[in-house]
This record gives sequence, C-alpha cells and structure tokens, in this order.
Amino acid sequence: MKIKFINARILTLDNTFEIIQGELVVKENKITFIGTKAPEDNYNRIIDCKYNLLMPGFKNAHTHSAMTFLRSYADDLPLHKWLFEKVFPLEEKLTKNDIYGLAKLAIAEYVSSGITANFDMYMEPHQIAKASMDTSFRTVILGCVNNFTESIKIMRENYTSLNSISELISYRLGFHAEYTTDEFILKELSKLANELREPVFTHSSETIQEVEDCKKRHSGLTPTEYFEKLGLYNYGGGGYHLVEMSKNDLEIFKKHNLFAITCPGSNTKLASGIADIKAFLDYDIPVAIGTDGPASNNALDMFREMFLVTGLQKLKHQDASCCDAKDVLYMATVNGARAMGLNNSDVLREGKFADLILVDMHQPNMQPINNIVKNIVYSGSKLNIKMTMVNGKILYENGIYYLGEDIEEIYNRANEITNKIKKA
Amino acid sequence: MKIKFINARILTLDNTFEIIQGELVVKENKITFIGTKAPEDNYNRIIDCKYNLLMPGFKNAHTHSAMTFLRSYADDLPLHKWLFEKVFPLEEKLTKNDIYGLAKLAIAEYVSSGITANFDMYMEPHQIAKASMDTSFRTVILGCVNNFTESIKIMRENYTSLNSISELISYRLGFHAEYTTDEFILKELSKLANELREPVFTHSSETIQEVEDCKKRHSGLTPTEYFEKLGLYNYGGGGYHLVEMSKNDLEIFKKHNLFAITCPGSNTKLASGIADIKAFLDYDIPVAIGTDGPASNNALDMFREMFLVTGLQKLKHQDASCCDAKDVLYMATVNGARAMGLNNSDVLREGKFADLILVDMHQPNMQPINNIVKNIVYSGSKLNIKMTMVNGKILYENGIYYLGEDIEEIYNRANEITNKIKKA
Repeated sequence: MKIKFINARILTLDNTFEIIQGELVVKENKITFIGTKAPEDNYNRIIDCKYNLLMPGFKNAHTHSAMTFLRSYADDLPLHKWLFEKVFPLEEKLTKNDIYGLAKLAIAEYVSSGITANFDMYMEPHQIAKASMDTSFRTVILGCVNNFTESIKIMRENYTSLNSISELISYRLGFHAEYTTDEFILKELSKLANELREPVFTHSSETIQEVEDCKKRHSGLTPTEYFEKLGLYNYGGGGYHLVEMSKNDLEIFKKHNLFAITCPGSNTKLASGIADIKAFLDYDIPVAIGTDGPASNNALDMFREMFLVTGLQKLKHQDASCCDAKDVLYMATVNGARAMGLNNSDVLREGKFADLILVDMHQPNMQPINNIVKNIVYSGSKLNIKMTMVNGKILYENGIYYLGEDIEEIYNRANEITNKIKKA
Repeated sequence: MKIKFINARILTLDNTFEIIQGELVVKENKITFIGTKAPEDNYNRIIDCKYNLLMPGFKNAHTHSAMTFLRSYADDLPLHKWLFEKVFPLEEKLTKNDIYGLAKLAIAEYVSSGITANFDMYMEPHQIAKASMDTSFRTVILGCVNNFTESIKIMRENYTSLNSISELISYRLGFHAEYTTDEFILKELSKLANELREPVFTHSSETIQEVEDCKKRHSGLTPTEYFEKLGLYNYGGGGYHLVEMSKNDLEIFKKHNLFAITCPGSNTKLASGIADIKAFLDYDIPVAIGTDGPASNNALDMFREMFLVTGLQKLKHQDASCCDAKDVLYMATVNGARAMGLNNSDVLREGKFADLILVDMHQPNMQPINNIVKNIVYSGSKLNIKMTMVNGKILYENGIYYLGEDIEEIYNRANEITNKIKKA
C-alpha cells in the first residue's frame, strides 16, 4: 500500500515545533517522504488533507485496557477501597476471552482519541496481544508480576514469546506495586532485569498512604528508594503516577534516566493528588502521559489528559505560566514513545513507522489559527481526530472504525461480558 | 415542522434521573409528546435514534463569545496581567462587525458541544443578539456596565429592545466586576434592578487579590457583602467564578436565592484556584456551569467543564466520593437554564422549548452501559454529540453545522478579523 497525503500541515516534532506545509508518503508501514512535493508514483490512495494537521499519534503510556467493564461501575471511591473492595473481586471473574473482548473496546477508544500505541499492564498478556494484533493496533505489554498473578518464570516466557509474536507487540518487565508484591519476587525480578539488561516499570508513589506504608515496611525507604536498592532500575524504566515524590526520589529518577509517567485524570478522579510535573521538568526528567484504566479515569482521552497535565500544574503552583503547551504535547507523543521503547514511532521522519494522526483544523475549537500547538493542548477534543493510522494502516477515519470487526460487535460483546460478571 | 424521534433513550431530567425508552415529538419550537408511542401524524421527518440518548441541551451559564479571536493568543498569564495588558488593549480595536463574526464562531463551538444556550457578557449586545438570531441560537445577554463601556441609560434601552427582539434572545442586568465599576454606577444599577425587579449578575470573588482589594476599598466588605449592601441582590441574580467565598458570602447567596456559576476550566488555566462547589451544595445554593470566554479556557466544551467540576472537588476535598455525577449533570443543564431565566428550556417535558441534544451512545467511551449519567460526566466528549436542536431547529447533526452560513465562511471571517487586530 502506498498512500500520499497532500495539502497537509505537518508537525513532525522531530526536534522542532515548526509546522510545514506539504506532502507525506506512507509505503507499507513506514513514512518514506516528508516535504513540499512527493515524487510521482502509483499511489493506492491520495488523501487531500485540506490543510488539516498530520502529526505523530499520541502514546498512552499507562493503561489497563481490559478494565473497560468497570467504567462507571465502581466510581467515587478512594484508591485503596476502590482497588481491594471493588476492582480485585470483580477481576477474579474474568476469563481469557473476556480480557480479549474488553481490550478491543479500549483500542476502539484509543484510535478515536488519536492514540496509536498503549503501554498496557494487565492479566493475560497473550490475550492483550491478540486483541491488538487482531485490530492492527500497537501495544507494549508490561509484565505485571505480583503476589497473586504471574511469576518470574511466566514473565521470562512472555518476554521471549511476546517480543517475537508480531511487529505490533513488544513486552517489557514490570510489577504491579510495592504493596502487592513481596520482596522475594522483586529480588527475582531484579535478577531477571539485570540479566536481560531491561528497564522495569511499576505503579509508584500514587498516594501518600502508599509511601508511608512502604516506609514502615522497608526501613524508611520510599518506593523509589526501595526499588533502586533492589537494583530494579539498573537499566532504566520508570514509574506510573508518582504523585508523592521526595527530592531524593527525583534524584534517583534523574540518575537512572527513568521516565515519569503521569496520569492526571485518574489521580483527580480517585482524589490521589497532583503530581509535581514542574519538578520533573526542573530536574530534566522526561515525562510521559497515561490515561490509566477506564475504571479510574474513566475516559481514555489524551486531549483531556493534556489539559489536565498543564491545568493542574497551574493550580498547584498558582502560576498560569506553568507547564507550557509545547512541553505537554511532547509528553503525549515523543516522550510517550520513548518511555515505551517505541523509538521508531516517536516523530514523523522518513524511515519511521507510520503511526500518525490527522487533526481536524476545520472545527470551531481549532479556530482562529493563532497557535496550533496551543489549540491542540488547550482546546482540542476527540472531535478533532479525523484519522488515526497505526503501522501504515488506517484504523479510524471520519468517525468510522476499521478494527477488523464491526464496532457494534465489540460493544455487544463488552456489554455481555460486563453483565455476566456483574451477575456472577 | 413536525419531527418525531423514535427508538430513543430519553433522560428528561424532569425531577428524575430515570431513563425511559420511547418516542419524542417536536412541533415547531416545542416538545409536544414524550412517551412510549407517539400519535400518528404527518411528520416532516422521523429520526431513528438507535437507542442514543435524548436529553436537555447543556446551558453555558457564563461566557464571552466574541473573545474567540484571543484563543491561543494570550495564554499562560495570571488573571490581572492577562486582562489589563493583553485582553483590554486588543478588545479596544474590535468593531461591531468583528464582534458579530467572532460570536458566530463561538456559537458553532457551542452546538458541537451540545450547548443550546449561552449567558453572554460582552460589548455590543445588539451584535451578539444578531449573531444568535442569524444562527437560530438561544442567547441570554447580560448587561455589562463598567467604567469604560455601557451606561445605565444604555442598559435600560437594551433591556427594553433586546427583551422584545426575538424569542431566542433575552437580556438581563449585570456589570463587569467590582474592580472595574465605580460605586455611583453600581448605585444607579441597583436603582434600575429594584425598579424592574430584576436579578443582577457579575464576576465575583474570582481571585484572592480581587477580594482583598475590594475589602480595602469598601470597609472590609467582600464583593458579595458589598453588592448585597448596595441592594443589587434584592431580586436575586448571582456571581461568576466565586473561587474565594467566605461563610457570610455563602449565607448571602442562600438568603437571596442567588446562583453560583462556576467556571473551572478558566479558573484552572488562569491559576485562580478551585471554587468550593461542595460548600455550595452543602448550603443548597444552586450551581450552574460556564466555560468562560475562549481567551481564558480555551475550549467552549461542557464535557471538559463537567469533568473538572467533579474532579477538582475530589482533589480539593481529598475525597473521591465528592460531587456526584448526577449533581454535575443537573448543574450543566437544569440549573444553567434556571440561572439564565430560561425556565422553558430546562427539562424535557411537553410544552417546553425543544432545546435538546442527542448523545451518541454508539461510541467506545459510552460503553459498556453500566451507568449512562456517569458515562456522560466522567467519559463524555464532543464526539458524543450527534445532534443539537435549539428551539425546534437542528443546528448541528452528524458533524455538519446548520447555522445559516457555511461554516468555512465563519472560520475565514474569524481569521481575517484576528489577523487584522493583531496587525493593527
């Protein structure tokens, strides 16, 4: 397949925020041309962008896709009560097929929000992989070992099998959280990460309670200090949430080149607090953005997350100039890709994967055109996603889903699974 | 025109959050039937809702529509610097025609967000009225007297002329703010309001600085106390923003049946703070929601505002159960209408104006269907607006704008005006 985009505004984010006007060519799964005028060729399709904006797709750097069944079901509870009394008991009832079907629903929502890849942490990673492969979506699966599910042995097997299953799928090492994973497991994980020279990711410092409990259990160490001491960060990685970080935690992140993955929608809805993004920026720690799962957010909407990232910093620091739109857009795209190890999906450049979106400027919220980057971060919405392309394939265009299965089937299955679990 | 909606989920909000399945009929500008099966008739159009949700349109209870030209232009500044150094100097350059054109752009954004009426405060109220009448949109214009524009004499004239110009337009009394309006003007306004037995609205207690400055100028009185003392609230009214409210301020609101109109997006972006919505609810003070103008928000998106209303309360009170989705949806619809005096546009009921929207449930963010009200408040987006009807006329449907003028013309004009003002 050869697709040529013409009459495009193009924001490559390739070390610049400059927007050029011109053409972009996708051959198979890669970008092969960006410039004023593409070479003549037998294109299968020529898409007139009408001066809408081509840019790298958003990367959802932390989520639990299959939790769609809990959307609007277990709301308005604090994190620990929500997790232990609502989420865990219902999750126990999920079958493999359920996880497959529920993940597909999340993928539909991702593409409607211009998200071209997700960093997914959940049970049954082979089902998550299958959902992504069947919909042609790109997913980085995070191992999620803890006291209840998975094991280091299984993680090692998944690492081998899922890193070779499809060019759309990759697998990285991780664990659920300090408060759900005993030290002997973390020590085994550390051995594995050091052997494979792999980064490690986890939920970390999401609430003050989590940090205080960790300190009590581990001689006054914060989660970040404790994980570093165990050697989990020797080859990088990062943390999700990071609402409660000490100065020393920030130093550790800086020292090990860790990624801070912020989830402001989830932290807001669960009343966990506001992560200090300004501090990460001051320390030059790269920040990426995740929606978290649909049970805690409840939307999988990168536009809402971007506004929250900057808006909540302005409130936290009582400074309207805090956390510039450019920084936020970079977090949602380039930094997300790099946190996930998707170094060929980060920017628009010849040779990179064609993981890109077309942003509709012909909507009132994008007008007038004073500053396109600010328009996207401060005014953008899902309504502005005209097209989402992953690995050279269009998965969503003009409101239609192309996910290898009728979208209504995906909805019906998700409702059937949800009703079954609620009744069980 | 007779339009019948069939196969609808219907959320009337008429003293209930129950959702019924059935049919709804609109004749001319009114709802004439809600129930299981509409009577036979020669309908001009039958709309199959496919079990999408009919509900009252959102009411944008505070905005400055014509400020669209400043979107993404004067960002990242605190309120007073932003207002006096950026906004006021550029606004001076606006012509009457400019205000007409810029307001039309905002109206397009309103209908794309399911907003069916706005409470608009700006210069040149006759131009605002013309923009709404030409697009068939419903607008309540707020007089905006201050030291620089309008006068009590003009306001009295506008009150008469704009309250009789069209069934889509009404006009109410107001002033810009304490810090821009001298006492002799407020005393004249109070006389007028008491003569006409009309409520009065204004920007109030938006920042701590505003409250402190007011106290210095007026013997320790807060803005709310000062306005009450001047008799401005004898026939009701309310305040916009209300981020910094004392207990006595709340008592005054309660005593005079005033409306608290919150603008969380604007207060977030300008780092003004978080209004205490929980306190308003505890005092039984009705809360409505406004986007504020596009210069300070920058989106005119009721979905974003609804999430912020509840999310910011959860953060402020460190309580994930704070500010229930039902309360928020009621604020965005019924309370908004009542704050604006639109008592025939508040709920879906036979005899009420047909100011209603069709919410697309066939989108991934609305699935599965555990709780529709929570889905709307916690996951909803502009993408879920399938249709917006004002006064019985469809102004937006399936992504197409029906505003009496080609939407691209509206964009082009807004860009021309903006470029002219920036260069001048």
